[in-house]
Amino acid sequence: MSCNTSPFHMPELIRRKRDGGELSHDEIEYLIGSFTQGTVPDYQVAAWLMAVYLRGLSRPETADLTDAMMRSGEVLDLSTIDGKKVDKHSTGGVGDKTSLVLAPLVAAGGLVVPMISGRGLAHTGGTLDKLESIPGFSVHLSLAEFRGVLQRCGCCMISQTAEIAPADRKLYSLRNFTSTVENASLICASIMSKKLAEGIDALVLDVKTGSGAFMKHEEDAIHVADLMVETAKRMGVRATALITDMDQPLGSHVGNTLEVEEALAVLRGGGADDLRALCLELAAWMFCLGGRAPTVQCGKQLAEDLLGSGAALDKFRQMIELQDGDPSIVDDPKRLPQSHSAVDIKASQDGFVVSIDCRHMGIACLALGGGREHMGDSIDHAVGFVLHKKVGDAVAAGEVLCTVHYNSESRLHRARKIVEESYRILPDAPSKHRPLVRGVIRDVQLR
Amino acid sequence: MSCNTSPFHMPELIRRKRDGGELSHDEIEYLIGSFTQGTVPDYQVAAWLMAVYLRGLSRPETADLTDAMMRSGEVLDLSTIDGKKVDKHSTGGVGDKTSLVLAPLVAAGGLVVPMISGRGLAHTGGTLDKLESIPGFSVHLSLAEFRGVLQRCGCCMISQTAEIAPADRKLYSLRNFTSTVENASLICASIMSKKLAEGIDALVLDVKTGSGAFMKHEEDAIHVADLMVETAKRMGVRATALITDMDQPLGSHVGNTLEVEEALAVLRGGGADDLRALCLELAAWMFCLGGRAPTVQCGKQLAEDLLGSGAALDKFRQMIELQDGDPSIVDDPKRLPQSHSAVDIKASQDGFVVSIDCRHMGIACLALGGGREHMGDSIDHAVGFVLHKKVGDAVAAGEVLCTVHYNSESRLHRARKIVEESYRILPDAPSKHRPLVRGVIRDVQLR
Repeated sequence: MSCNTSPFHMPELIRRKRDGGELSHDEIEYLIGSFTQGTVPDYQVAAWLMAVYLRGLSRPETADLTDAMMRSGEVLDLSTIDGKKVDKHSTGGVGDKTSLVLAPLVAAGGLVVPMISGRGLAHTGGTLDKLESIPGFSVHLSLAEFRGVLQRCGCCMISQTAEIAPADRKLYSLRNFTSTVENASLICASIMSKKLAEGIDALVLDVKTGSGAFMKHEEDAIHVADLMVETAKRMGVRATALITDMDQPLGSHVGNTLEVEEALAVLRGGGADDLRALCLELAAWMFCLGGRAPTVQCGKQLAEDLLGSGAALDKFRQMIELQDGDPSIVDDPKRLPQSHSAVDIKASQDGFVVSIDCRHMGIACLALGGGREHMGDSIDHAVGFVLHKKVGDAVAAGEVLCTVHYNSESRLHRARKIVEESYRILPDAPSKHRPLVRGVIRDVQLR
Repeated sequence: MSCNTSPFHMPELIRRKRDGGELSHDEIEYLIGSFTQGTVPDYQVAAWLMAVYLRGLSRPETADLTDAMMRSGEVLDLSTIDGKKVDKHSTGGVGDKTSLVLAPLVAAGGLVVPMISGRGLAHTGGTLDKLESIPGFSVHLSLAEFRGVLQRCGCCMISQTAEIAPADRKLYSLRNFTSTVENASLICASIMSKKLAEGIDALVLDVKTGSGAFMKHEEDAIHVADLMVETAKRMGVRATALITDMDQPLGSHVGNTLEVEEALAVLRGGGADDLRALCLELAAWMFCLGGRAPTVQCGKQLAEDLLGSGAALDKFRQMIELQDGDPSIVDDPKRLPQSHSAVDIKASQDGFVVSIDCRHMGIACLALGGGREHMGDSIDHAVGFVLHKKVGDAVAAGEVLCTVHYNSESRLHRARKIVEESYRILPDAPSKHRPLVRGVIRDVQLR
C-alpha cells in the first residue's frame, strides 16, 4: 500500500503533522504529486487533511502546498503576449459582478487580464454563470484559444480547464467530503494554485467578510488575505488584498442576467454607488500593481476615464464577440434572457433598513432557480432581484424594498418569504456605517 | 457518495468530532456499521479517526464505539456451557507467556476460559505464535469447534475468526496507515470489542507499562486501563485491570519455544519468580471475578494448589490434545523445536544490572527470526534467549548474562549487539525497585 522506492513514508508525514510538526518542500511535493497521480490513497490524504485542519500549516508549508498544487498541472507562460498580466480574485459573495467590469476595464487600460473563473458555490454567484446569460458566450475555450483572445483584446474570461491545477480539483472534492474545507491555509492554496497557474505578474484579491461571505468574521478574512499575499510573494508574484464588506449584497442587482445588466451600467459610467466604488478601487490597485498608475488615486482616475470614454464598454463588446457571444446585448441589455414576471416586495412599516441578511438573499436567488442547489442543476439566468433599499436607507410603509424577477409561482413563494425575512427594519437608523473597503494588505514581511 | 436515505450525514459527523463535539450511540453505530459494510468510504473514516485522535472520545462515546465494533460481527453466547466465563487480556510485552499458564490453570479451577488471542505485534510476542511452536497445535478452530473444546475441557485458545468484530480488523488497518493507532479510546475499543465478543462474564486486564510496553508512561497505561474497566462496566461485564511492569522482560525466557518451556515450568510449580508471581496474581483476580474465591488471597491459594497438584498441567495437556497438538511436549519439552546453536553473553565488568531495555530485547528476538519484521514473515519458533541476570542482580565480569539460542550466524550477529547494548551495568545497585504490580483498577464510577 506504500511505495517502497520513495524516500517518503506517508504514515510518517501524517504523524508529523498530527503532532504539530512541519513538512518540507519535498515532502509536500511528494504528497500532492502522488495524490494527483493516485499512488497515495485518498484515506491517507484525508487523515493528513484533518491533521492540517486541526494543527494548521506554517506559512512556508502553505506556500509549498500552493506551489505543489499549481505545478500539478500546466502553468501558463504568457510572456509572448505584450503587457503586464494582472488578475483579480474574489472569495465570493452575493451580487458581486465586479469581474465583469474589471476584465474589460483593466484591459482597456493596457494590461492583460487572463481570468479563469468559477461557478456559483453554495449561496454565492459565479462569474461563469453570469457570462453564460449572454447568448452564445462560450467559457469553455482551450488554453490555445484563451491565449488567442488575450493576444487580440487583452482580456478573456474562461472556465478552469483540466490542465490547470488538477490537484486542487481532487483535493477540494476530498475536503468537501471530509469536512476539511474551512481552513485558511487550504483555502489559500486552493485559490492561489489556480490563480498563479495563469502566469500572472500581479494579483488583486478581494477578500469578502460579513453575512454573505464564506468568512463571516473579519479576523478570519484578514488571516486568509494575509496568507494569500504572503504566498504570492514567496512565489514571486505581487499581490494586494482588499478586505471588503459582504454584509449586504453588492450593488442593487442579484441574479445572472440582472448582474450583467448592472455591470453594463457601471461600464457605461453609472451603476449603484457601492458597486461602482469597489470596481474603481479594485481597478486602481490592478493598475498600480501592473505599473499603469503610480498611486491608487491615479489608478482610480484612469479607471474613471476609461469608463467615461466608453473604452471599457468597447473592450467588453470586443471580448464578447471573440468568445462567440452576442455583442448586441451591450447596447440592448433587454436581449439578455428576461423573466416572465416580476413582483415588488414592500415595507410593512416605517423606519430604516438596519440589515439585510446577505447569505439568505443568496439563498433566495437559488430558490428562484438562479443558482444550483445541487451539483449539475441547470440555471434560470433570467431570475433574481433588484434591491431598491439598502442598509441605512429610510423606508415608509408600503414603499418598495425589492423587485423579484421570477418564472415560477412556487419558487417565488419560497424566495419571497426569504427576502422578506432578510430585511430588518427598525424605527431608528443604524448607528454605525461600515466602510465598503475595511482594510488593505499591501505587503507582508516574510518570517 | 453518501447514502441519502440515511438520517446520518458523514461530513456532519466528522465536523462535529473535528470541533470537539460528541456523537450519539446511533451515530457511532451508523458510522461503524457502514464502514464495515463498505458503504461509507475509507477516506471519511480516516478523517474521523484523525479528528478522534486529536479531539478525543468521551467515555460514553468510547463505550458506544466498543459496542458498535463488537456488534459488527458475531457475539458468542456461551450460556449453554456450565460455569462462569472469564478471560484475561494483556496489552503486550516481551517474555509475557502468562496466557499459556492462565488458561489451563483457571480452567482447572472450574471456570471457563474462552481465549481468542493475537499474533506478535512490533517488538512484542504473540500467544498464537507461541502455541504454534507446539507440533500440530491448531489455533484456527471454527467457532463451533471452539465451543466444543470449551465444553470438554474448560479452556481453548484460538485465533480471531472472520466472524469476530470485523470492524476492528478493518479499522485497525486504516489506523495503521493513517497514524491514528496510539489513542486510548481507540486502543480500548479495539481490545474490548474483541474480548467482549467472546461472551464472557468477567475480564482481567494486564495493562503493561515500561520500556517494553506500548504505553511507556504509567499515566497512559492507567488512562487506558481505566477506560477499559469503565467500558466493560457500561457493557455489563465485570472487569479489573492490573498495571504491571514491562521495564524488563517478564520471566527469564524470550522466544516462542522457550516461552512454552517456561510456561510449562510454572505449570509444574516452578518458573522465574516474577512470572510465577504475576500468574498467581492474575489467576487470583480471575477466580475472584468468576466467583471461585472470596478474596484475592484465597484466589492465590487456589491457584497455588492447582499448580502444586498438577491439575493445571493436566488441563494444559488435555487442551493441547483437543487442539491437535502433541501432548508429549508437556512431559518432554525438548520435543519442541530446538535451535541448532546457543551462545552465552557475558558481563564485561563487575557491578549490578540497573536496567535492561525491554523493547530492544524484543527487537533482538525479531532479529533472531523469532518474530515478524514484516507482515507475512515466517517465524523461527526455536530461537530466542534465556536471561540469567535481571534488574538488581549483582554480576561479576565474565559471568553469563544471557544465553542466545540461534539458527543463523548473521542473525546472531545483529541480535547479540542489541542484547549487549540492552544490559546496563553500573558499580552501584539500583536504588529503587519498582513493584511488578504497580496498581489495580477494580472499579470506576460512571460519570
